[in-house]
Amino acid sequence: MDYLNIGLIGYGVVGQGVVKVLKSRRKFLREKYETDFVIKTLCDRSIAKKTNPGLDHTLLTTDYQAILKDPNIHVVVELIGGLSPAKEIVISALRAKKHVVTANKALIAEYGLELFKEAEANGCSILFESSVGAGIPIIRTITEGMAGNKFNGVYGIINGTCNYILTAMSKNKLTFAQALKEAQEKGYAESNPTLDISGMDAAYKLAILTFITMGKFVNVKDIYVEGINHISHDDIEFAESLDLSICLLAIAKKIGNKLDVRVHPTMIPKEHGLATVNGVDNAIFVDSDPLGDVFIEGQGAGQMTAAMGVVADLINLGIRDDAPASIWAFNPADEVENLSLRKIEEVETNFYIRFMVIDKPGVLASITTVLGQHNISIASFSQKQENKGSTVPVVILTHKANEHEVKLALEEITNLAVVKGKPVAIRMEKL
Amino acid sequence: MDYLNIGLIGYGVVGQGVVKVLKSRRKFLREKYETDFVIKTLCDRSIAKKTNPGLDHTLLTTDYQAILKDPNIHVVVELIGGLSPAKEIVISALRAKKHVVTANKALIAEYGLELFKEAEANGCSILFESSVGAGIPIIRTITEGMAGNKFNGVYGIINGTCNYILTAMSKNKLTFAQALKEAQEKGYAESNPTLDISGMDAAYKLAILTFITMGKFVNVKDIYVEGINHISHDDIEFAESLDLSICLLAIAKKIGNKLDVRVHPTMIPKEHGLATVNGVDNAIFVDSDPLGDVFIEGQGAGQMTAAMGVVADLINLGIRDDAPASIWAFNPADEVENLSLRKIEEVETNFYIRFMVIDKPGVLASITTVLGQHNISIASFSQKQENKGSTVPVVILTHKANEHEVKLALEEITNLAVVKGKPVAIRMEKL
Repeated sequence: MDYLNIGLIGYGVVGQGVVKVLKSRRKFLREKYETDFVIKTLCDRSIAKKTNPGLDHTLLTTDYQAILKDPNIHVVVELIGGLSPAKEIVISALRAKKHVVTANKALIAEYGLELFKEAEANGCSILFESSVGAGIPIIRTITEGMAGNKFNGVYGIINGTCNYILTAMSKNKLTFAQALKEAQEKGYAESNPTLDISGMDAAYKLAILTFITMGKFVNVKDIYVEGINHISHDDIEFAESLDLSICLLAIAKKIGNKLDVRVHPTMIPKEHGLATVNGVDNAIFVDSDPLGDVFIEGQGAGQMTAAMGVVADLINLGIRDDAPASIWAFNPADEVENLSLRKIEEVETNFYIRFMVIDKPGVLASITTVLGQHNISIASFSQKQENKGSTVPVVILTHKANEHEVKLALEEITNLAVVKGKPVAIRMEKL
Repeated sequence: MDYLNIGLIGYGVVGQGVVKVLKSRRKFLREKYETDFVIKTLCDRSIAKKTNPGLDHTLLTTDYQAILKDPNIHVVVELIGGLSPAKEIVISALRAKKHVVTANKALIAEYGLELFKEAEANGCSILFESSVGAGIPIIRTITEGMAGNKFNGVYGIINGTCNYILTAMSKNKLTFAQALKEAQEKGYAESNPTLDISGMDAAYKLAILTFITMGKFVNVKDIYVEGINHISHDDIEFAESLDLSICLLAIAKKIGNKLDVRVHPTMIPKEHGLATVNGVDNAIFVDSDPLGDVFIEGQGAGQMTAAMGVVADLINLGIRDDAPASIWAFNPADEVENLSLRKIEEVETNFYIRFMVIDKPGVLASITTVLGQHNISIASFSQKQENKGSTVPVVILTHKANEHEVKLALEEITNLAVVKGKPVAIRMEKL
C-alpha cells in the first residue's frame, strides 16, 4: 500500500527504537518498499514525562482507545509487555480489523492460539518477529524460509542475559553475583533479573518456537524450567577441564509422539556451535525434514535489535497484506493431535553432579552406593582438591540416567552426614 | 489461493526432488497452507527416458510451450539451468502473467535486474531462494527477515564442493586431487568440476547476495575470482600451525562508496565461526545496520535441500501473491548511484605467501629485498624443513599489502634462480 498508518502503544526502550528507525529512515523505507510508514498516534501512560519524539502530526496520548477507535489506523504496534491490558488491546485491535505487531513473548506464549484464531477470523495478521531472538529473524526463517518442512526439534541459546552471565563467569573468572552485577551495569540485565535468570524468559520463547515448528501449543507452566543462579565458578572450571561449556539451553524435540520441552543449564561439547556463542548473542538450531539443520545466530538484546524485528514486521505488512499467523504456525490436525508432552521425570540424560563433601575415606563409597541403588551408572569421578577433614568439591559424571531416579538419589545423598549443602546437577547433551 | 497450478520445466535432480516433496506431502501442504500444490505439466527434453513420476493427471511433455501457453498455469518453475533458453522461458512466462520460481543462479546473477523489472511490469513475482545457499533460506532471511536494515556487507562459504574438498584435505590429510576424487565419488562434485573449483559458482551467488543487500547489480565478470586448485597440502599444514583455516570465501563489503567484491581462498582464524563449517555446509554472515551481524549455516548441497528452497518459494506464492522481487532487492537510487566496484589492485590484505626455494644461504635476502622494493612489509618468516641444496617450502606472512604490488613482486621473485615454480599467495582476513 502507499502508506501504513501506525498506532504505537508503549513508548519504552523498544518503542523509542522503532520510532527512531521509522523517523530517520522514512525516505529510505518509502522509496525501497513503496510504502510510507507513518506513526499516526503514539500512546504511553506517561507520555508527558518522556522525550518528545519530534514526530510531526503525530498524536501523543495516554489513552490507547484513541488508537483502537481510529478507523484510519491500519496496524497497532503493542509494546507495553505483560498480559494485561496487552491481551485486551490486541483483541480489540483485531476486532477493529487492524493488523497487530507485537514483541510481547509472554502474550504470544500464553495466548498465541487464541490470538491467531482471532486474527484469522477478522482477516488480519498478527506478527511477532521480535518476541524471540531479538536480532535474529527466527520467526520468519522458520515459518517462511523453511516453509514446507516438517520439524523434529528446535534448540538453542535464547536468553542473552544468562548467556552474558555464563560467558563472563567463564572468560573473566567471575562469580555468579559479580557477573550478574556486570550485566546489570551494562544494561543486559534488569534491576530485578528474576525473569531472565530463572529461565522463564527462555521458556516463553521456547513455547513460541515449539508452536511455530511442531504446531503444538504448550502451556508455559508445563515446561520444565531451571535457571542459572545455582551455577558456581567450580562448575564452570570443571566443565572446562572436561572440554565442555555450560549454557542455558532451551530444547524442544519430538521423540515419536512425545514432545520433550525444557529449559535448563546444560553442558555441551566445546566444539559445538552453541559453545562459542558469546555475550548477549542468541543462537538457534532448527532440525527439519528434509532440509536438515539450520543454524542462525545474532544479537540477542539491545534496543535497536528488538526494534528492527518490529520494523521488519511493519514492512512485511506494508508491502502486502500478510497471510494470517495461523497459516504459518498451525500444523494439520493429524500432525499434532497425538503429540503429548513428555514429563521431565521420563527424560534421560547424562549428568554432571557436584557434591560438596568432607574430604575423608569412604565418602565416595557412600555416594556411589546410593547412586547404584537408583540404577545410576557412573562414567567418571573426580576430586581435584585435597584437604583432609575439610569440605571439597567432588564431581561425578553419570551415564544416561533417569531424571526421577537422579532426583531421588540426590535427596538421599543430601542427607548423608559427609555431604554439605545441596548437590548441583547439570544435564549434559551431546546435541 | 485454493490451488496453485505449476508448470515445471527441467526434471533433473532438483526437479525430481521438488516433485517428490509435492507428491508425498500434498495433503500436509494443502492442510497447512490452505493451498493445493498441483503439478499440471512436467516438461523435460528427455522426459521419455526418465522415471515416470507417477503424478495423476499431469501432462508429461518435451515442449515447454505447452506450459507457457497454458492459461491455467499460475507459476512456472524453471530448473533447466544455464542462460539459454532459461532466460527466454522466464521472460515469456512473466509476459504471460505467470509467476516464476527458479534455482538458476547464473540466470539471476547475469539478468536479475532485467528479469525483476520484467516481473514488476507484469505484476508477477520471480522467486529464487534455491539459487544461493541451497539449504539455507538466505534470500528470504535477508530480504524479508532483515527488512529495513541497511547492509554493510555479506561474506561466507557458499560453495559446498570447495568446502568439502578443503575440509577433506585438512581433516583427512588428502591432496587436492584425492579430495576432489572423493567429492566426485560422493556426488558432491560434478565429473567436470570446473564451475565449482574455479570459484565461478560462488561468484554467481555472491553477485546475487550483493544485489539483494547493497542494491548494486555487479557484473559477474567484474568480480575478482580465484579458485582452490593451487592449494596444496603444505598450505593447509602451514595454516594449521598458525591456528588458521583455509576456506573459499566470497566477500562483498561496502567501504565508503566502494564495493569490494571478491571470491578467493582465504586464511581465517580457527576460532571464527566460518572455520568450523564442515563438509558441504554453507555459512553466511550478513553485516547490517542497525541489526548487526546475522550468521546462518546449513546444508549447501543435496537434492532435497535445493528442492526445499523451490518448495518454500511455491508456498510463499500459494498463500499470497508475493510482492515483486524488485521491491525486496532494489535499493533507493541515492543509496546505489555512487557505489562503484573497487578494483582488486586497490585491495589491501595481509598475505600468506609460500615459495618453493633451494635451501641455501642468501635466499631469504633475495626474496625480502624484492618484497621491500614493493613496499611489502614482512610480519613473519618460516622455513620448517631443512634440506641443504634441495627444494623446500618457505612461508612469509606480510603485513597489510597492496594487491598490485604483491602481484608485481611475485612475478619478480618467480624469476629468481633460487625460486622454483610459482609462489602461492593466500589472502588472510581477520573478519
